[in-house]
Amino acid sequence: MKIVVDGFGGDKAPEEIVEGVIIALEKHKDLEVILTGDKDRLEKLIAGRGEGKITIEHAPSVITNDDVPTEAIRKMDDSSLVRAFDILKNDEETIALVSAGSTGAILTGAIMKIGRIKGITRPALAPVLPTKKSGKDVLLCDSGANIDCKPINLYHFALMASAYYSILYSEPSPKVGLLNIGVEEHKGNDLTREAYKLLKESSLNFVGNVEAREYMSGDIDVMVAEGFAGNVLLKASEGAVGAVLSLLKSSIKSHLSSKIGALFMSKTFKELKGRIDVLSKHGGSPFLGVKKLVMKNHGSSGRDNIASSIDQAILLHNNKLIPKIEAALAEKVGQ
Amino acid sequence: MKIVVDGFGGDKAPEEIVEGVIIALEKHKDLEVILTGDKDRLEKLIAGRGEGKITIEHAPSVITNDDVPTEAIRKMDDSSLVRAFDILKNDEETIALVSAGSTGAILTGAIMKIGRIKGITRPALAPVLPTKKSGKDVLLCDSGANIDCKPINLYHFALMASAYYSILYSEPSPKVGLLNIGVEEHKGNDLTREAYKLLKESSLNFVGNVEAREYMSGDIDVMVAEGFAGNVLLKASEGAVGAVLSLLKSSIKSHLSSKIGALFMSKTFKELKGRIDVLSKHGGSPFLGVKKLVMKNHGSSGRDNIASSIDQAILLHNNKLIPKIEAALAEKVGQ
Repeated sequence: MKIVVDGFGGDKAPEEIVEGVIIALEKHKDLEVILTGDKDRLEKLIAGRGEGKITIEHAPSVITNDDVPTEAIRKMDDSSLVRAFDILKNDEETIALVSAGSTGAILTGAIMKIGRIKGITRPALAPVLPTKKSGKDVLLCDSGANIDCKPINLYHFALMASAYYSILYSEPSPKVGLLNIGVEEHKGNDLTREAYKLLKESSLNFVGNVEAREYMSGDIDVMVAEGFAGNVLLKASEGAVGAVLSLLKSSIKSHLSSKIGALFMSKTFKELKGRIDVLSKHGGSPFLGVKKLVMKNHGSSGRDNIASSIDQAILLHNNKLIPKIEAALAEKVGQ
Repeated sequence: MKIVVDGFGGDKAPEEIVEGVIIALEKHKDLEVILTGDKDRLEKLIAGRGEGKITIEHAPSVITNDDVPTEAIRKMDDSSLVRAFDILKNDEETIALVSAGSTGAILTGAIMKIGRIKGITRPALAPVLPTKKSGKDVLLCDSGANIDCKPINLYHFALMASAYYSILYSEPSPKVGLLNIGVEEHKGNDLTREAYKLLKESSLNFVGNVEAREYMSGDIDVMVAEGFAGNVLLKASEGAVGAVLSLLKSSIKSHLSSKIGALFMSKTFKELKGRIDVLSKHGGSPFLGVKKLVMKNHGSSGRDNIASSIDQAILLHNNKLIPKIEAALAEKVGQ
């Protein structure tokens, strides 16, 4: 099984990307990785590891967040990302692409180079987020790739994220909620009202409107949102959690008794950090709706994020995510 | 100075509303309050307090969240809210209305009974939210009253919330940020791009796009948002903070050492609670853009929220919030 990894995408590239690949190769004995990027630098970092399971595809340039995605994908043929897309496109044995580069460029590349699943106009991201319930996560789809969506896009997000959730958590019928500013059916704007109707009529397990306050309750599995609102939801949560921790920290510092108390609470702080890290990472989710697996990692991804993104690509491939989405779309059309 | 208070609006009405009025009357010696609602019940609760400074205006019915706002305002003349609006409208000496009732009904009543300031099409709420910086708050405008806004509405939100912030915090030139999914000028949807232009050209202290993650940084004074996104921002923050606290609590319970540690940390937990309460209350903000002061309190408001909402109405009246908004609008027109 082959996966192509963008060696120069992300803030911690190429060092952490290479280390992530090494971790994944140790875990998956039948895995081969193609790494794209500057050959000399990658060879030095690999330092003979990977036992012939790593192929380097030289690509001297790097697409950054400052590049305009469509232009970059069209013109920067020698970039680590475009080279990776060309391999994913042309090599049938390569099952997935992993990158921590510019989200816009990855999305654009996925659409232009790989193409959309028939019937899908808007590929979407569905990052995994934590909930109040220990061990229970929720998927948010879309989290910011698509703005100015139509109702049918939101229905597709629900369908694709449900298929994705089913595989990740072995749950045949995930509960789908629609992000809205009230729970009643008539609440929200034209988009949410129309999307509500489509979801209600579909064969998905739609539980109704869900307010932003409740998406971390653990009661729903998939939160469907237009990308602008989804992005606000995601980042507001990160910001609020960060603010609480920062208030907690500065208050502990200013009271001797709290400092002492904090020493006793190391287990609790560690547990809390573990749950919250899910939120701050939310790395490694596939662009749902693309014909092959394109895994987008957070720009700040470290080795463990890259390795787990490769893990996930293998899991999603083995459990036939894309054929399942195609089947679900066909079913709807036939109704 | 007279203020009319909806005695039966909110989850804790009428008991907590009456107590809030009593607190306010003790603080403001020249204040008179007109309380609307069931006369018998209100008289019993007042129990002779208020020394002739409370007038009860009998109104036997109550508008709830289940009533359709426009119908309720039109037809429920004998409701505590409509009676309060009629007093605010007809009595020149009454400077403000305070209610913890249905947001939709208060907004509708404000528009239908009192009317908008000339030039304003969309009155908005601008609740006070906490930031990471101790003692530093931020206003969010709009937080959910207005969905499907136009760029000019967002400019008006910025203008009105700036005038409001100036009075609350004695800051002549509040820093205004625009809620967006990226900081660059071209980011976002058509609405945010057009609003960005208007704000940039205005005489407001516009600092650019701000992501949801950063609105609690303490670096901006006013966060401008379309109502749907603003509502998601507000409620996602509440939800995320609640989730962190709930994780913290359950982890403390499950480790003896953490339980002991928590005993030492009472000061810190108290401080944290104090800051977070700002978020969960965000009660008592005026509907900006209405010709007279209409203070909307959170449905769960208790006596202190009601009293502080009355405090704020007096402050805003004395500092001429509405004339200032009118002047700012005129200035823009003249440019």
